[in-house]
Amino acid sequence: MKSDLTHLDEKKRPKMVDVGVKEETERIAVASGIIEVTPEAFEAVKNETTKKGAVLHTAVIAAIMGAKRTPDLIPMCHPLLLTSINCDVEELPNLPGFKLIVTCKLKGRTGVEMEALTGVSIGLLTIYDMLKAIDKGMVIKNIQLERKSGGKSGDFVR
Amino acid sequence: MKSDLTHLDEKKRPKMVDVGVKEETERIAVASGIIEVTPEAFEAVKNETTKKGAVLHTAVIAAIMGAKRTPDLIPMCHPLLLTSINCDVEELPNLPGFKLIVTCKLKGRTGVEMEALTGVSIGLLTIYDMLKAIDKGMVIKNIQLERKSGGKSGDFVR
Amino acid sequence: MKSDLTHLDEKKRPKMVDVGVKEETERIAVASGIIEVTPEAFEAVKNETTKKGAVLHTAVIAAIMGAKRTPDLIPMCHPLLLTSINCDVEELPNLPGFKLIVTCKLKGRTGVEMEALTGVSIGLLTIYDMLKAIDKGMVIKNIQLERKSGGKSGDFVR
Amino acid sequence: MKSDLTHLDEKKRPKMVDVGVKEETERIAVASGIIEVTPEAFEAVKNETTKKGAVLHTAVIAAIMGAKRTPDLIPMCHPLLLTSINCDVEELPNLPGFKLIVTCKLKGRTGVEMEALTGVSIGLLTIYDMLKAIDKGMVIKNIQLERKSGGKSGDFVR
Amino acid sequence: MKSDLTHLDEKKRPKMVDVGVKEETERIAVASGIIEVTPEAFEAVKNETTKKGAVLHTAVIAAIMGAKRTPDLIPMCHPLLLTSINCDVEELPNLPGFKLIVTCKLKGRTGVEMEALTGVSIGLLTIYDMLKAIDKGMVIKNIQLERKSGGKSGDFVR
Amino acid sequence: MKSDLTHLDEKKRPKMVDVGVKEETERIAVASGIIEVTPEAFEAVKNETTKKGAVLHTAVIAAIMGAKRTPDLIPMCHPLLLTSINCDVEELPNLPGFKLIVTCKLKGRTGVEMEALTGVSIGLLTIYDMLKAIDKGMVIKNIQLERKSGGKSGDFVR
Repeated sequence: MKSDLTHLDEKKRPKMVDVGVKEETERIAVASGIIEVTPEAFEAVKNETTKKGAVLHTAVIAAIMGAKRTPDLIPMCHPLLLTSINCDVEELPNLPGFKLIVTCKLKGRTGVEMEALTGVSIGLLTIYDMLKAIDKGMVIKNIQLERKSGGKSGDFVR
Repeated sequence: MKSDLTHLDEKKRPKMVDVGVKEETERIAVASGIIEVTPEAFEAVKNETTKKGAVLHTAVIAAIMGAKRTPDLIPMCHPLLLTSINCDVEELPNLPGFKLIVTCKLKGRTGVEMEALTGVSIGLLTIYDMLKAIDKGMVIKNIQLERKSGGKSGDFVR
Repeated sequence: MKSDLTHLDEKKRPKMVDVGVKEETERIAVASGIIEVTPEAFEAVKNETTKKGAVLHTAVIAAIMGAKRTPDLIPMCHPLLLTSINCDVEELPNLPGFKLIVTCKLKGRTGVEMEALTGVSIGLLTIYDMLKAIDKGMVIKNIQLERKSGGKSGDFVR
Repeated sequence: MKSDLTHLDEKKRPKMVDVGVKEETERIAVASGIIEVTPEAFEAVKNETTKKGAVLHTAVIAAIMGAKRTPDLIPMCHPLLLTSINCDVEELPNLPGFKLIVTCKLKGRTGVEMEALTGVSIGLLTIYDMLKAIDKGMVIKNIQLERKSGGKSGDFVR
Repeated sequence: MKSDLTHLDEKKRPKMVDVGVKEETERIAVASGIIEVTPEAFEAVKNETTKKGAVLHTAVIAAIMGAKRTPDLIPMCHPLLLTSINCDVEELPNLPGFKLIVTCKLKGRTGVEMEALTGVSIGLLTIYDMLKAIDKGMVIKNIQLERKSGGKSGDFVR
Repeated sequence: MKSDLTHLDEKKRPKMVDVGVKEETERIAVASGIIEVTPEAFEAVKNETTKKGAVLHTAVIAAIMGAKRTPDLIPMCHPLLLTSINCDVEELPNLPGFKLIVTCKLKGRTGVEMEALTGVSIGLLTIYDMLKAIDKGMVIKNIQLERKSGGKSGDFVR
């Protein structure tokens, strides 16, 4: 079995892979993740949601800003020029918890799934931060790629 | 039920809460998270681990650097002077996957769980990035606080 | 007349002045600034305010995050550990426009007026950004220190 | 009246708008702003100007570096590749004060007025910082777009 | 003799030069530098190298991340989209010391030698940091451009 | 021979060492470095120096800002609150070239030599950047610690 660890050179040193040979195409990635909270914390956000939505709103802004910081945070990620970042939040009353979905777009030479996943992670951490005085047992889970298109390796749908 | 959303002021505007009145104490937080990967990806890391450990090593460095960036990323987090950051990685051959544990310490006025959780998130995203050419179905999960001590609100152990 | 340009050394080179000799005290600074907009833009924010307040909310978050970035942006500013950042927004229907007030606190060796002023500036620029599709003639004005306390040089009230 | 708050989606959540459909054109924006200071502070800068210009020089560098940081600071701004940043400073002896003018250029898909305005703001804050030991009553004002060209919505001249 | 200080305008103010008129070409730069250490420190790295290579590995990651931060650090550098960053480390047993070589690539309008040189500098500082408990006399030297191609001014080979 | 690679844990993973047990003391570090340039480039800076000193002035500002960014750049460096940063530049007409000296101070738990060395490196790279249109053969050399005081391990003087 040959595994293609593309971020390591022949001496097993990390490298930022050469994408200069790739074509500029329209690339889209959608990632999602969930934060599971107590019923008390869920209600606190929901009540506040019906008024001003400050917790979820702050999370969305943090997700957008976090997605833009991806190449500063993930060592082998290329700097790139996201053309669009979009977030959605779903209430999951049965868990209870919240699902954050981040969509990133680019006209460029490399995929944007890391940007979408980083946005999701930072957004969920922001919800965690704003609820931690109420709930210390929260769990962030199921951070995953939902779908991806535009790359040479073909489209992906979970 | 009164819920204490401490990051919102009386007009529901976000604020960075005042920690100036808190005492400087030794604070420790331990967080962990898991990335679930395919057997093929697991083997690729393990083989490479026995040589130079580049993937997990890169993740540890990204986790440490990410933990330091927490106040830049999480809007309501205070800037603070972490005195120590320590990582551990466990192989989970049955999942298969990897567990990343980050411990942060501070002599200061506010807890460091967000720093530990951010470190875990960035570290796991780094593993994801370095394996995504092999495995597009990876899932990051169970990002959670393991234990915390040193604050006014008492110690926490999961 | 002798003017004390404290940020220049005897060769007129910039320096970050030595605050190591100053005492750690509780320092507070309040700064404010105004953005003047068209009646149409004012109404757009107000209508939206009665629902979710997204524009002003985003500005508050950007102000808080911007205040934390001050030492990265203003060359001679010291890194410091803000203990509190608080924002308020006033509607000015007669201008029309909005006034943003940022309060920063610190237990430390140097004043925090630059942090409060930077927060105000970034917050107002964020309002500008979100309204610029409606109004290209907006003006940001009256960015100023309102009051300051805790330093050796005595309190200041405008 | 329909107001086009382009940075909010249909649920009033902030988003980074999609510029992928826009064409790459040469875009230029010029912004300016003023800092009003005491005659004493004005003289201090001028005297020093005739020698080495350290205050205004530092402000120009901070403005250039600040313009480059715009997407890190303004939540909904796109990352972009400024091709040119140019500053000019005018002495305003009658105010007294200083006017800072920043010109940004780009070959890209979105306008650069936020970059020019952010550069102006950071530059003026830098002058404030370097003069605040002499003058605590300074006011930053009239931060505004002077002209803009290259976008789909037509040129703007104040 | 006319010297072309391209980063200064006619008033001797710094500027970020206009590269909008330059063509997008494939640009490559290779830079290198050396850190001279004591035999004891050299052996400590080498021993550890044969196991996990943590010091040199960390330096390579820091070099890659540092190269990406160049426009944040060097005031007049343009933001740009590096398509590839590659590092190599040579052991110099006779010095003793280590040589770090960084190669950067870009499809763009400006050269990437500053990115390669910044990567080398940050990488060598990282080795310094990790060895400084053993050796306080280390010297970083010979940071220089090795070769460069793709620009209008012709290729350079040292 | 036992070598104390303090930044690696028992599994050879990098860590940010625990400085919480160290005492807060006044710490000072002085570092220096040299850039060797052609006579033509040396004259270009000197001529301009006698007027406005833009190249060396820009280097000093970049050095100060770079020193503040050290924990963002060097993976295992602690965040800390520099209380003072001071630069000096010496002309070396015989080399020809320039020597940059950076002095950093802190009241804290860890030494500041990395901050001084990073400041020197970024400052010299800035001179390089501003002269590279004239001189492609420049060499940065002799980046080294000059002296250090205030730590548990005793003072160091080169």
